[in-house]
Amino acid sequence: MDHSGPASEQDFLALIDRHFPGSSAHSSLPRGDDCAVLACPPTMVLSTDLFLEDIHFRRSYFSPGDIGWKALAVNVSDIAAMGARPLGFSLGLMIPAGPPPGPGFWGELLAGMAALAREHDLTLTGGDLSRAPLLGLCVTIWGRPGPTGRLLTRGACRPGDVLLACGHLGLVRAGLQALEAEGPAAARRWPAAAAAHLRPRPQVAAGLALAAHPGVRAAMDVSDGLAQDLPRLLGQDRDSAPGAAPGAALTLTPEALHPETRAWCEHTGQDSVTFACLGGEDYALLAACDPHDAPAVLAATPGARAIGTVTAAPGITLNGQPAPARGFDHFSTT
Amino acid sequence: MDHSGPASEQDFLALIDRHFPGSSAHSSLPRGDDCAVLACPPTMVLSTDLFLEDIHFRRSYFSPGDIGWKALAVNVSDIAAMGARPLGFSLGLMIPAGPPPGPGFWGELLAGMAALAREHDLTLTGGDLSRAPLLGLCVTIWGRPGPTGRLLTRGACRPGDVLLACGHLGLVRAGLQALEAEGPAAARRWPAAAAAHLRPRPQVAAGLALAAHPGVRAAMDVSDGLAQDLPRLLGQDRDSAPGAAPGAALTLTPEALHPETRAWCEHTGQDSVTFACLGGEDYALLAACDPHDAPAVLAATPGARAIGTVTAAPGITLNGQPAPARGFDHFSTT
Repeated sequence: MDHSGPASEQDFLALIDRHFPGSSAHSSLPRGDDCAVLACPPTMVLSTDLFLEDIHFRRSYFSPGDIGWKALAVNVSDIAAMGARPLGFSLGLMIPAGPPPGPGFWGELLAGMAALAREHDLTLTGGDLSRAPLLGLCVTIWGRPGPTGRLLTRGACRPGDVLLACGHLGLVRAGLQALEAEGPAAARRWPAAAAAHLRPRPQVAAGLALAAHPGVRAAMDVSDGLAQDLPRLLGQDRDSAPGAAPGAALTLTPEALHPETRAWCEHTGQDSVTFACLGGEDYALLAACDPHDAPAVLAATPGARAIGTVTAAPGITLNGQPAPARGFDHFSTT
Repeated sequence: MDHSGPASEQDFLALIDRHFPGSSAHSSLPRGDDCAVLACPPTMVLSTDLFLEDIHFRRSYFSPGDIGWKALAVNVSDIAAMGARPLGFSLGLMIPAGPPPGPGFWGELLAGMAALAREHDLTLTGGDLSRAPLLGLCVTIWGRPGPTGRLLTRGACRPGDVLLACGHLGLVRAGLQALEAEGPAAARRWPAAAAAHLRPRPQVAAGLALAAHPGVRAAMDVSDGLAQDLPRLLGQDRDSAPGAAPGAALTLTPEALHPETRAWCEHTGQDSVTFACLGGEDYALLAACDPHDAPAVLAATPGARAIGTVTAAPGITLNGQPAPARGFDHFSTT
């Protein structure tokens, strides 16, 4: 083994063992067998997300620790969106061929991932390593319902429901655009926006608070932008008869946005409210709540604010005008 | 959408829905929410494996259906190796940029995967799609113990134990070499070997039979070749004091190998027994069993045969000579 990185699978596994405990109450068999053995509650939630270089992140402004943190954070956010608590995860790690990217690269990546795992008491149960033509991570994460046993899914919204968002809409998009335009230096000028893109903080506490309240009818995390994800919360994408699912009237003012989102839009000549509505990867939670319960839910949920109401009419409006129609699509080639 | 393949994420999800039921008793929420919701037994086993183009498979001789089948089969094999029964899986699918690989490509890939999923009554609970610079699949699979609740892990072998293999050692290696040398035509000349490489059959029934017998002390699946995996079954890789874990004396004759393995070795001038010992991706099960129970276990386990004994001496011998020391390493750059 040279000093520029782990040279063999064995070295790599030893590096993982230095950053992640080998077993836990949830997963008692040490990593390295054919499977992990999990102690499971009767119901679990589970999600898989890919995190690929030059698709989901760039090495030019993501530090190795940012890559490890965010690959896990986007998965934790899916657990939060169900109103659940994460328990463990597995990792498929694609290691680019050729010389190691830097002396401390892999240790820093794993340390960034381990920092978020510790915050949520998450066990890395195992996974797979392979040489590959790109740097990429595939995380599968699972979790358990909160104390009430209730989980939040999409759909089930009713006209009159209050729409809530927990987290800053548009801030990640500002961070992404600033980092793409200005490179790593953007982190000094737009610190909150850059941090929101590089090290998003999944809203686990907010999700648990939402699920605990029976007045909350539906929730999801905003990963493709409000304009693209709100129709999914409303069930419009599963709509057997077009127009059968409800619509929404959004009320967003610039004052409701993070100051850096407003400042970035002013700097670049964009309308901040439209910008926030289109922004992808917010990892904010979006929920619909019975209007009678809205005050109690808003008071009990960290970072929640009302952003509109569910309507019987199927369209989606933003401050009385048709809402912008598209967000972010990782799949699209254009 | 043109006729050469799904053009959008939505088209792709519709194609997946055509091949896989959207929900099941194990996973009742239709795919498409932030997480799947799983009905879980108190103990589950879980594993993640990457399956990447030009690392784990080549499109020049894997049909699309073979790719889908094998990406899932290598994961089912990990469940079989624990003596468990698979329940469900999630899929991270990396879709190469550029024109679709062929008109029916994605449908055939999913059909191959769905055929194996149906054989084992497996639910695809969800996952992630992304454009990527390569065609790749990351499957996470989970399962439950068999009726006895017993699971098989590595280690715990004792001197005198009988070593068993279920499945053909070396046959996949013969298939790999023949396909690499002769291309798709090899499937006609070496049908069993090519099929073992392209469409391996995970040994779920054998794993369940092994786990049901208390005399079986340890098991794993042979994915990197017997020479590399047997030390892991013996616990030599976790050995705190070198020499503390037991060794093994293997007895393998050419007659114990598949006729196509022998024929390929004769054709290429290789020693068939050494060849079988080095062969990777066998997806045979390897187990250690109390010698008193060996006759009953051999009789009860489909495809099992004795291949040697565990020894107090830490070395590994093959027919009385030191065994060849290395198998297959997907991680290695050389």
